[in-house]
Amino acid sequence: MSSFKQIVELIADDLTAVEAKLTEQTASEYSFVDMAVQHVVEGGGKRLRPILVVLSAKVCGYEGSDAHTLAAVVELIHVASLVHDDVLDEAAIRRGRETLQTKWGNKVAVLVGDYLHARVLSMLVARRADDPAMAILADTTQAMCEGEVIHAYKSGDFDISEDEYLKIISFKTGKLIAASCTLGAHLGTTDKQRLEALTTYGQQIGTAFQIVDDVLDFTEDTDKLGKNTFGDLREGKLTFPIIYARSVCNDNEKQTLEKVLNPNTDEAEAIAFVEALFQRYGVEAHCLKVAQNYADRAKAALTVLPEIPARVALEQLADYVVSRES
Amino acid sequence: MSSFKQIVELIADDLTAVEAKLTEQTASEYSFVDMAVQHVVEGGGKRLRPILVVLSAKVCGYEGSDAHTLAAVVELIHVASLVHDDVLDEAAIRRGRETLQTKWGNKVAVLVGDYLHARVLSMLVARRADDPAMAILADTTQAMCEGEVIHAYKSGDFDISEDEYLKIISFKTGKLIAASCTLGAHLGTTDKQRLEALTTYGQQIGTAFQIVDDVLDFTEDTDKLGKNTFGDLREGKLTFPIIYARSVCNDNEKQTLEKVLNPNTDEAEAIAFVEALFQRYGVEAHCLKVAQNYADRAKAALTVLPEIPARVALEQLADYVVSRES
Repeated sequence: MSSFKQIVELIADDLTAVEAKLTEQTASEYSFVDMAVQHVVEGGGKRLRPILVVLSAKVCGYEGSDAHTLAAVVELIHVASLVHDDVLDEAAIRRGRETLQTKWGNKVAVLVGDYLHARVLSMLVARRADDPAMAILADTTQAMCEGEVIHAYKSGDFDISEDEYLKIISFKTGKLIAASCTLGAHLGTTDKQRLEALTTYGQQIGTAFQIVDDVLDFTEDTDKLGKNTFGDLREGKLTFPIIYARSVCNDNEKQTLEKVLNPNTDEAEAIAFVEALFQRYGVEAHCLKVAQNYADRAKAALTVLPEIPARVALEQLADYVVSRES
Repeated sequence: MSSFKQIVELIADDLTAVEAKLTEQTASEYSFVDMAVQHVVEGGGKRLRPILVVLSAKVCGYEGSDAHTLAAVVELIHVASLVHDDVLDEAAIRRGRETLQTKWGNKVAVLVGDYLHARVLSMLVARRADDPAMAILADTTQAMCEGEVIHAYKSGDFDISEDEYLKIISFKTGKLIAASCTLGAHLGTTDKQRLEALTTYGQQIGTAFQIVDDVLDFTEDTDKLGKNTFGDLREGKLTFPIIYARSVCNDNEKQTLEKVLNPNTDEAEAIAFVEALFQRYGVEAHCLKVAQNYADRAKAALTVLPEIPARVALEQLADYVVSRES
């Protein structure tokens, strides 16, 4: 059995409770809204963020239903961001299913994303007044938007450095993954060292996760990904593998690479050039090594926590983030 | 001097403080985000919702800076919804300025809307733990999205009744206008009768406001509106005047009307037909009469409140909502 399946099995009851919360907390009196929301919420996905909330709570000694509510909250924020991304990337499929805008148009899709955010706010309001979750998530959603705006704004800017890109993805992806861990930890502990350990763990695997996501866009086939391979490339998005390749290739290749990232270039030609370039400079292996370094730092942060099954699961999860195939 | 100018003059200091909050509370460490946000936040607009917060607070005896924060909050929610609407309506201008997607593309525009929502959450988090604002606004933003989703979903459905439409606009537009009044009132009173009076006032002028908005789309010229006249019509949006016209015209006209709402119909032809139809059945006058009825009910709700300048201003505002030309 894969390590990911083992982790899911360890917390199967919790994940069932999270799914129930997701359905219950997004219900609308309008059946159409219900249907559209369920289409995206049930769209599969690995539920990485809920798993992190539950495991972070457990490793800090908390077992209870508050973890399921917060797990649903972070998943809904994540789903809302995917729904908006799909509109803007004009994606036709996501996780092997038609996207909302394919089924019902752009307007419905943007508004369903907004609706999910509104439900998140309702869920947070219903909690304790002294709950740190709201402040953590206010900060997180703001950073996610800033990261996304800057990434969108910088698209087409070839001079983006590895450091700039890493900062953008720490905002875009890392913040919500780190918040998932911090929120779970807060349920079980007020110990600063443990809280910081789990936040650091989340930040590191968040960066690893996004780098691997970037790599999979080039290496996995559409069936496994549940979305189109080379999607980022065809949208002219600069991602980690391209930024690295650009930093090591020669001036001629650099010029061709810029041409290839222009969506007007013939697609087959663009893909063939990039594949050859990546082969030549070992780009995939390099990126996965960088991602593994982040995963290793994530695991190292966990040493202040007790060696119980939840900690082992978090360690396995860090490696899974790098070794996954979709 | 127009009654609207008088109202603005009465609370000029408050409105200056609200503008300062709007700038201060949307600041980002990324200068590009800052610039994009300021472009929409400074885009003018009548600041109807902030005015309602301030006047509702004053009529309930409150004078203080909390009203400015809540006024900024409701205005940002409103601006965020406009930014998303513009993306989906593919609007090129709003309030006489280029829209975000015209300047920087769809992606930036959707994300700036999301960013404004995130900032709203931050502003609410920073307030008192026992603050009712968060719960009111969670409910409000959810209803706004539901109303918008249903309106988008129903576009092209000619059988929508006046009642169904009025329910949709009470969600889409009325809820936030009502919330502006309720939030202001909460600052000054816990008296149930007064709170309900201001909520009712807000709901009624909200409906009046949207009906007049619908009418202005057909009757005002582009310069005054700051957006394209007949915009709703050309998007095939069913609005109040069309729903009323459809309910009184004959079968032949009904069939032509459905053709005209199809964006493939020649624009000049569509406009000429609708203008003649509206003339024939006195559609504009009827709609404005309906709107005035809502405004009158709004004013009637205020009788439980003391007859101080803030109440007079709210009464004048109800009439202004119907008589305005943009």
